[in-house]
Amino acid sequence: MLTECGESGVGGAVVLTAGFSELGSAGRELQREMLAVARRHSIRLIGPNCLGLVNTAPEVSLNATFAEVSPTPGALAIAAQSGAVGIAVLEHAGRTGLGISEFVSLGNKVDVSGNDVLLHWWGDQRTAVIGLYLESFGNPRKFGGLARMIGRTKPVLVVKGGRSVGGRRAGVSHTAAAATPETAVDALFAQSGVLRMDTVEELVETARVLAVPPLPQGRRVAVVGNAGGAGILAADAASRLGLELPELSAAVQQQLAALGAVGPANPVDLGAAASPASLEQALRMIVASGEVDSLVVNYAVTRAGNVADIYAAIAAAGDQADLPIVVNCVGSAHAGPEVALADGRRIPVFPFPESAVRALAHAVRYAEWRARPQGVVPELARVDSAGARVVVERFLRRTPNGGWLDPEEASQLLNCAGVPMMLVLTAESRSKAIAAAETVGYPVALKTAAPGVVHKTDIGGVRVGLASAVQLGQAYDEIAAAAGSPQVLVQAMAPAGTELVIGVVRDRLFGPLLMAGSGGVLTDVLADRQWRGLPLTDLDALDMLHSLRCAPVLAGYRGAQAADQDAVLDVMQRIAWLANAVPELAELDINPLVAAPAGAFAVDVRIRLTPATPEPDWYARHLRGDQPLAQG
Amino acid sequence: MLTECGESGVGGAVVLTAGFSELGSAGRELQREMLAVARRHSIRLIGPNCLGLVNTAPEVSLNATFAEVSPTPGALAIAAQSGAVGIAVLEHAGRTGLGISEFVSLGNKVDVSGNDVLLHWWGDQRTAVIGLYLESFGNPRKFGGLARMIGRTKPVLVVKGGRSVGGRRAGVSHTAAAATPETAVDALFAQSGVLRMDTVEELVETARVLAVPPLPQGRRVAVVGNAGGAGILAADAASRLGLELPELSAAVQQQLAALGAVGPANPVDLGAAASPASLEQALRMIVASGEVDSLVVNYAVTRAGNVADIYAAIAAAGDQADLPIVVNCVGSAHAGPEVALADGRRIPVFPFPESAVRALAHAVRYAEWRARPQGVVPELARVDSAGARVVVERFLRRTPNGGWLDPEEASQLLNCAGVPMMLVLTAESRSKAIAAAETVGYPVALKTAAPGVVHKTDIGGVRVGLASAVQLGQAYDEIAAAAGSPQVLVQAMAPAGTELVIGVVRDRLFGPLLMAGSGGVLTDVLADRQWRGLPLTDLDALDMLHSLRCAPVLAGYRGAQAADQDAVLDVMQRIAWLANAVPELAELDINPLVAAPAGAFAVDVRIRLTPATPEPDWYARHLRGDQPLAQG
Repeated sequence: MLTECGESGVGGAVVLTAGFSELGSAGRELQREMLAVARRHSIRLIGPNCLGLVNTAPEVSLNATFAEVSPTPGALAIAAQSGAVGIAVLEHAGRTGLGISEFVSLGNKVDVSGNDVLLHWWGDQRTAVIGLYLESFGNPRKFGGLARMIGRTKPVLVVKGGRSVGGRRAGVSHTAAAATPETAVDALFAQSGVLRMDTVEELVETARVLAVPPLPQGRRVAVVGNAGGAGILAADAASRLGLELPELSAAVQQQLAALGAVGPANPVDLGAAASPASLEQALRMIVASGEVDSLVVNYAVTRAGNVADIYAAIAAAGDQADLPIVVNCVGSAHAGPEVALADGRRIPVFPFPESAVRALAHAVRYAEWRARPQGVVPELARVDSAGARVVVERFLRRTPNGGWLDPEEASQLLNCAGVPMMLVLTAESRSKAIAAAETVGYPVALKTAAPGVVHKTDIGGVRVGLASAVQLGQAYDEIAAAAGSPQVLVQAMAPAGTELVIGVVRDRLFGPLLMAGSGGVLTDVLADRQWRGLPLTDLDALDMLHSLRCAPVLAGYRGAQAADQDAVLDVMQRIAWLANAVPELAELDINPLVAAPAGAFAVDVRIRLTPATPEPDWYARHLRGDQPLAQG
Repeated sequence: MLTECGESGVGGAVVLTAGFSELGSAGRELQREMLAVARRHSIRLIGPNCLGLVNTAPEVSLNATFAEVSPTPGALAIAAQSGAVGIAVLEHAGRTGLGISEFVSLGNKVDVSGNDVLLHWWGDQRTAVIGLYLESFGNPRKFGGLARMIGRTKPVLVVKGGRSVGGRRAGVSHTAAAATPETAVDALFAQSGVLRMDTVEELVETARVLAVPPLPQGRRVAVVGNAGGAGILAADAASRLGLELPELSAAVQQQLAALGAVGPANPVDLGAAASPASLEQALRMIVASGEVDSLVVNYAVTRAGNVADIYAAIAAAGDQADLPIVVNCVGSAHAGPEVALADGRRIPVFPFPESAVRALAHAVRYAEWRARPQGVVPELARVDSAGARVVVERFLRRTPNGGWLDPEEASQLLNCAGVPMMLVLTAESRSKAIAAAETVGYPVALKTAAPGVVHKTDIGGVRVGLASAVQLGQAYDEIAAAAGSPQVLVQAMAPAGTELVIGVVRDRLFGPLLMAGSGGVLTDVLADRQWRGLPLTDLDALDMLHSLRCAPVLAGYRGAQAADQDAVLDVMQRIAWLANAVPELAELDINPLVAAPAGAFAVDVRIRLTPATPEPDWYARHLRGDQPLAQG
């Protein structure tokens, strides 16, 4: 069939048929053949094993799906790796009046991928908001780069399926999709401004707000209406989601009270008997005050009111407002899902106050990301990539399959990255340990260097603050006995400070991921961690550090001196440099990094290397058919 | 009007009229008069300032509201302190087929309260689930007791408005309701089995699941359907919410594969082309296996399927199943909101997989609470209430308006409760400090006892591990200078252990609240705390301790010895005893309580007393009109 199409000059095909890579090796072979035919005739191919596509442009008006929905035209473009999820979005977008510009069911993604449609929608006039349902990433680094670029003009909202073990089990068995670690996905999204949505419902609701310009210019929101309880719920939701509900100025409160408001502070309660005219007046006053960046209108329709008049009042105020408005309306089955403005914009109306506020909060978050400078990757002095290469190649010659560096080599690599480290010497006997201590100077720490010990503390393999040869000798005997090995490390004591952990893991798809967190013995219990991918800008690093729960401790807590934050940021950048410069670096753990008032010092470091694999060639892997492929 | 009603023998009245206590003192006076009239004629009164009430019983069929809704009969009883929120619930309950038994808009609650309707619905045959929207509690301790009792037979779902500063501002200005601290509310709900709902939508969705017996017997859930992506989202939501998605046994997977399932593990994906007959078969197989406690069915309607046949298949399997089933159906505007079973039960159908799973997860949580023993309040030996009374009365004679006990008195009170405390002596000079150290034995800790210092560490007022008179003398000079006071405490050093904080605050409405958390210098940064009210059963205390993030550290972490958990629990019970025995105890803070391998020891304690106020007399305050009243 495809061959016939190609011979007739067809340029694109959508293959709904199932029975390809999702069914095992025979299906993969068939899929490979199909793609080869398509390539031969320069046919771009969507699917196979998909639900089809939709384009609501009047001159096209195409619904080539087998779904039981009638999509309405609108501003949301949506791509889904699952047919069922696609149907749910189409249905909800239709029901709420949002409508869609285009819909693509990606299916097994043998040719056209999420990244392809992202690029297409970037330039599409009819698309204001891009929504994706994904279970796997073909090339996440490319996705991150694209999203970062596209996000500057259009918001990208993503629901990512397959978070849980159960969900991933389904992802593998059902769609043959490779599970992506959630930390990597979160890091990717945080850096590229992608708005991660928990549910499909949330995606559509958020798109309804983002589809209507302007974006909110800040976090300040006013809640206004005749529905006191709904106003309280809206205020609660706003504060839970990080929005601000400033108390309105005395002047504005006076104006509102003169209108008959029973609660003029914010939330503004106009009272159950508020007329449409007074609602319009109140909205105009608050807009004119400049004291908030967005409005939430709560309205309860009773037999005393008239929903059409209320919508007209909101529209009249909205026509003049240059800030976003969302509406929560209860009590009328006849209330439409949108308030139409004179210029064609349509303000979204929600059935619950909390969903209105949640969607607005996402819009605020997106606007903040877009306004935020991206930062720069700082230039680093005192880095030695040639030196690092020597260490790595020497190790891999000795250990061709890779493994953990010994402590001295790990220190050398850190040194090549310019990371300050507490002086550490190895010793294989009691007397050599005492000699080493003389060199580094008392007091010292003594740690086992027994091969294969991951958590030294757990087995009684760490002693600190040893002030004399006598103390050292005794500690040596105990540690050597506990670890069953004469090998130890003798290290100068770090200055007092906050213990952090700085780490790297290299993800097969996402590349190196940098971690910063609360360190020391309680690292795992505290679970206070932040992840980012590369490149790591100065603002990314600052953002990581400030997002940690231990940030107040670093800033100087309860009489303690502040830690040298610049030194910590410098170490993070140097580790990012190392991860980038050494493709063989599979895993790195500095724990603790002591953040002291005058510098940050690595006390303990573990590094694992693997033989470098070349960057995967995605197109080649597609053709071979062994790339994780996915459908829904 | 009320007088006329009373003279005609009317037994109850609903006052919709506004203009009472919510508008200030004149309104309060009017409200007081109205209540007096009602009392004189033995009229029970709902409102004023409310939306009315609904009773859908066929023999009553009353809609005495001015809302624009037509309530349908069903199993949810709902009381709302806000008219608008009530309308939202009525509307959503109607739209989803749940329906309501009765609705009461409480308004200003001058007579009939939330507690009154709770008791009424407890005995109401038509009510299976009770929902409340509250902004304030009249008598929270009574509410907690009632809810704990009623919750054993009917679930109580509550949306609590006024969590945020903004929301509380509205609560005060709009409804004159007193804001209740959120910690107290959470403690109350946790202990009384009340299911706290974040949103009104969640309340109705959860009620839809809880209205259909049986309750889930455990956390294991199977996700089944033809909609792969929706299955993944359901699995993700289940795992996020603490449900388990066990991999089905090989035997069951074989049966399912024979049926044509493309993913038989769980989530079970029957493939897009699954027939109604195979869906029914699959559901029967999974029910028969006994491997799960509930079922989530995901179904995407396409042009290849027929929604009526699918509903019939689910019903046929559901008729035989003795576990709860929830359905997520996408892709058909014609799909009804419920699947009817032969015995009259109606399985809820949701438009999104996540909302179906969230509602089910609440049902699991409720069933677990109901199955859990309530525990007992242990008998305590070595408590001395007469001794405590002596300390309290001596202090209040000296300080009639209350205040902080001095350290020695605080120790005496702890001693009366039988809480082990590290020996501490006061000293007012260098030489007396050295003498005190001889008594408690070196090494010692030295702390300032300067009046008015709340956080001693912050001002350099704490030194530990002082091993000799020389060290002590030097530390004394420094601390006395830093705190500007010669008064110090000399204390024996606590054994090594985990630092906890145990505290009490007395809430005006909720009574004493007990706190347990991670203690020491980082108490506020870690914010690792649990709260409960009194009475505190042994299981409540255990639950508190196990819910702390630091629980693994107490259990013995990374080679450290486990702390004496029984000793910590004993201290918690003794502090609960003290809070109960001493009504004047306003605030108490043991920080740190050192949880060591052989015991738990209070190192530092601060106690504030106030003159005892008698328990508020709610009825008297109602009549006086100065009780916080609320409406919506």
